[in-house]
Amino acid sequence: MREGFEIRDADAAGRIGELEIPRADVTVETPALLPVVNPNLQTIPPADLAETFGAEILITNSYIVHSNDELRDRALEEGLHDLLGFDGAIMTDSGSFQLAEYGEIDVTTEEILAFQHEIGSDVGTPVDVPTPPGADRDRAEADLERTQERLDIADGIDVGDMLVSAPIQGSTFADLREDAARHADATDLDVFPIGAVVPLMNDYRYGDMVDVVAAAKRGLGRDAPVHLFGAGHPMMFALAVAMGCDLFDSAAYALYARDGRYLTVRGTEHLDDLDYLPCSCPVCTEHDADSFRDLDEKDRETALARHNLHVTFAEMRRIKAAIRSGDLLELVEERARSHPAMLDGYRALLEYAEWLEEDDPASKGTFFYCSSESARRPEVRRHHDRLDRLDIPDELLLTEGPHVDRFETSWRLVPPFGPVPRDLSTTYPLNAEVPSRTDSAAIEVAAEGVNRLAEANPGTDLAVAHRGWPDHVLAEVPEDVELIDLDAMG
Amino acid sequence: MREGFEIRDADAAGRIGELEIPRADVTVETPALLPVVNPNLQTIPPADLAETFGAEILITNSYIVHSNDELRDRALEEGLHDLLGFDGAIMTDSGSFQLAEYGEIDVTTEEILAFQHEIGSDVGTPVDVPTPPGADRDRAEADLERTQERLDIADGIDVGDMLVSAPIQGSTFADLREDAARHADATDLDVFPIGAVVPLMNDYRYGDMVDVVAAAKRGLGRDAPVHLFGAGHPMMFALAVAMGCDLFDSAAYALYARDGRYLTVRGTEHLDDLDYLPCSCPVCTEHDADSFRDLDEKDRETALARHNLHVTFAEMRRIKAAIRSGDLLELVEERARSHPAMLDGYRALLEYAEWLEEDDPASKGTFFYCSSESARRPEVRRHHDRLDRLDIPDELLLTEGPHVDRFETSWRLVPPFGPVPRDLSTTYPLNAEVPSRTDSAAIEVAAEGVNRLAEANPGTDLAVAHRGWPDHVLAEVPEDVELIDLDAMG
Repeated sequence: MREGFEIRDADAAGRIGELEIPRADVTVETPALLPVVNPNLQTIPPADLAETFGAEILITNSYIVHSNDELRDRALEEGLHDLLGFDGAIMTDSGSFQLAEYGEIDVTTEEILAFQHEIGSDVGTPVDVPTPPGADRDRAEADLERTQERLDIADGIDVGDMLVSAPIQGSTFADLREDAARHADATDLDVFPIGAVVPLMNDYRYGDMVDVVAAAKRGLGRDAPVHLFGAGHPMMFALAVAMGCDLFDSAAYALYARDGRYLTVRGTEHLDDLDYLPCSCPVCTEHDADSFRDLDEKDRETALARHNLHVTFAEMRRIKAAIRSGDLLELVEERARSHPAMLDGYRALLEYAEWLEEDDPASKGTFFYCSSESARRPEVRRHHDRLDRLDIPDELLLTEGPHVDRFETSWRLVPPFGPVPRDLSTTYPLNAEVPSRTDSAAIEVAAEGVNRLAEANPGTDLAVAHRGWPDHVLAEVPEDVELIDLDAMG
Repeated sequence: MREGFEIRDADAAGRIGELEIPRADVTVETPALLPVVNPNLQTIPPADLAETFGAEILITNSYIVHSNDELRDRALEEGLHDLLGFDGAIMTDSGSFQLAEYGEIDVTTEEILAFQHEIGSDVGTPVDVPTPPGADRDRAEADLERTQERLDIADGIDVGDMLVSAPIQGSTFADLREDAARHADATDLDVFPIGAVVPLMNDYRYGDMVDVVAAAKRGLGRDAPVHLFGAGHPMMFALAVAMGCDLFDSAAYALYARDGRYLTVRGTEHLDDLDYLPCSCPVCTEHDADSFRDLDEKDRETALARHNLHVTFAEMRRIKAAIRSGDLLELVEERARSHPAMLDGYRALLEYAEWLEEDDPASKGTFFYCSSESARRPEVRRHHDRLDRLDIPDELLLTEGPHVDRFETSWRLVPPFGPVPRDLSTTYPLNAEVPSRTDSAAIEVAAEGVNRLAEANPGTDLAVAHRGWPDHVLAEVPEDVELIDLDAMG
């Protein structure tokens, strides 16, 4: 077990954890949102980030501090915490973003880590080399090699009790991401940012984002704290947490505010386009759309940044509450409806149901069937695996409706689970709540369950009493299973 | 056109309207939430309901005022507005709830309407007879007859410029609800509460609720303001507004607070069970879960009621913003994932796609395909109807992928719409955003579109180039349509 990160609760691949930051002498609860603080321009004072919004950790860019004489001198003299006026933990980025944007920077990993340590950073970052999506494989491999060299350098430097992050690159090549993660995991570095996903998110490529995160997670130990670097839009936090991401940073709250953009968990609005404020936060309670717009430019920007932060931190709390009550996937279900690209992300997530199942708790509250996607949730898959191992009688009716007298034993037949053994019907997930109007995805998956049971028990006389299942589904049921259409019986 | 209610904007069957309340000399914007104020016990002072939460109208029970000597005397002397300390519009209920609960009350419609008028109510209510779900048809008919007698009495009484509501009963018998609505619509009464739906909502029978509302709406003119009586949970507002409900009342904010229950748009939590406050409202920003719970009992109840109201009013604003931007059904999509019973309600709503289509604007922003349910949205249906009327060439390829050279003309083939004529592909809803991972519901509906086009154009040589559509869907495509599997072509 990696020291310094403890997992307290889990749901799907998401978790509530405690990350010790020894140099700041604090423990940060994850999933955590790190507001990005620009040392040149503080839209919201860092002390206020802690007090009003509950930020336990923030992130700032050591390269900007390093490049500016006045800031550098002050940081070296006062230390970063006094410079920013923040008591909690401070993570520092290294200039990799500037490297990606401008092609070069004038510090090395050794220099910037030493500088980060000197100014009192609690979590430092080496200079990794981000590879954008769309780069060819040669470039991705070459960039990754340089990144890994720098991680090895960072791993060898003594930085006292400052934690150091180990960014994972590899563009959209799943095998490279997985190898990179395995390499990072083998170092003594502490925190694992998944890098260069911002272009994917800017292009709404949430399906690809899920593939990238899944690849990195495969290469990392379960006990590795994962930072989805640059991901600050609350719309996608639930999805990313369900994939096992623990840390997020948001520059969006401030950058979007500068452009008049208003964050919601459903997407982004422009304040100028809003006739109503679709939010309950203190800013949106105090104002209506007109009075918000009529604020002085500077006040409007600050108010908008505060709204953006309220929404962002509330979504984090909502996600933690969902993990605690075991309905994180239900929250992901909802967020998946905010945009077709988010639905794509959720569908991509469910393609990893086998992997999700490994960490997913076997028992939670109640499974809610809330869409055709629910049919592919890991709990359904786990139930089907269990069907292979059950003792069943020689003759068995599976029924969506009443018992039929000529059978001695009957089990309920519940889409999407399929056969529900009597003694399991009150346990998770078979105590599921399902809509009375079912859908073909649920029926198809229920039929897969029937087939699993039939295949595992060739000696049993099975019958299926269904409510008008479609022909193409019935055609897949083994021939020796008797079919009874309850709807046709009236 | 009914005077006093003007529809300003519409989406699905939902609308933003302006309801004139002449006696209060105010115009209330709908959809509106009327907080229920108990004249004996004000959890939140009514003046605060207006100032902090923006309530333009509230509702109180004239029967409680009438039954209590002290309240009655004060109301007659000071008037209801001074008694409650509220400047906006006040609607009064009549005691029907008490009638339903206790079997009898000691006032008649004539008496209670005269009393409501005397104490200064802005919207009065006759004594209707609520019939619960599960009542047999004889009782529902008998109750409805009595209700209708009372509406006729109310219609004949001179109450000056007080508006009077005309409750619609009929239990779960759709034909009775429709008849009742037609009868109510034929009176000169002003506001149309759909009654006795609370038991349906308490039992999470949202599918049945949708059927009841749809039946009532069929009997009412489009210009009738509809009040979903007793519906105060923010989880179902979007669904109910999309059905064409305009007014809601909430006692829940206060009653739930008394029991420690915490409302969210996803359902109801118990404050005692929350480790995190999943909300951005001023109460939940000021407190964390522990400090909230640690408040004195009275302060906790007030704070909880305030949270409940913040959530409730914010959802109303969110719904109005969605109507304005034409994405109300996208919001319903999201809310449908909060509980399987809500999904049932949404699926029930889509069974009325033909009726929804009548009021739905032909052009909005962008259609978001966010679930298999989206395939049954009214916009898709309207497109299929249009396919019957298009001029098409003698030879036409419909393709999910590239053009195939041997065809002269090709149109895009987009699930769930099906054939997308070239000159319409940038117009609503064919400029839809769809996920890259499609689903079988979308493909099935797309195939229905192909079939509509084929049937309307028997002389055309049609070909379909699809990406691995399942056999059972292809089997439904007319035999003379050529099928090309793009996936199999590699």
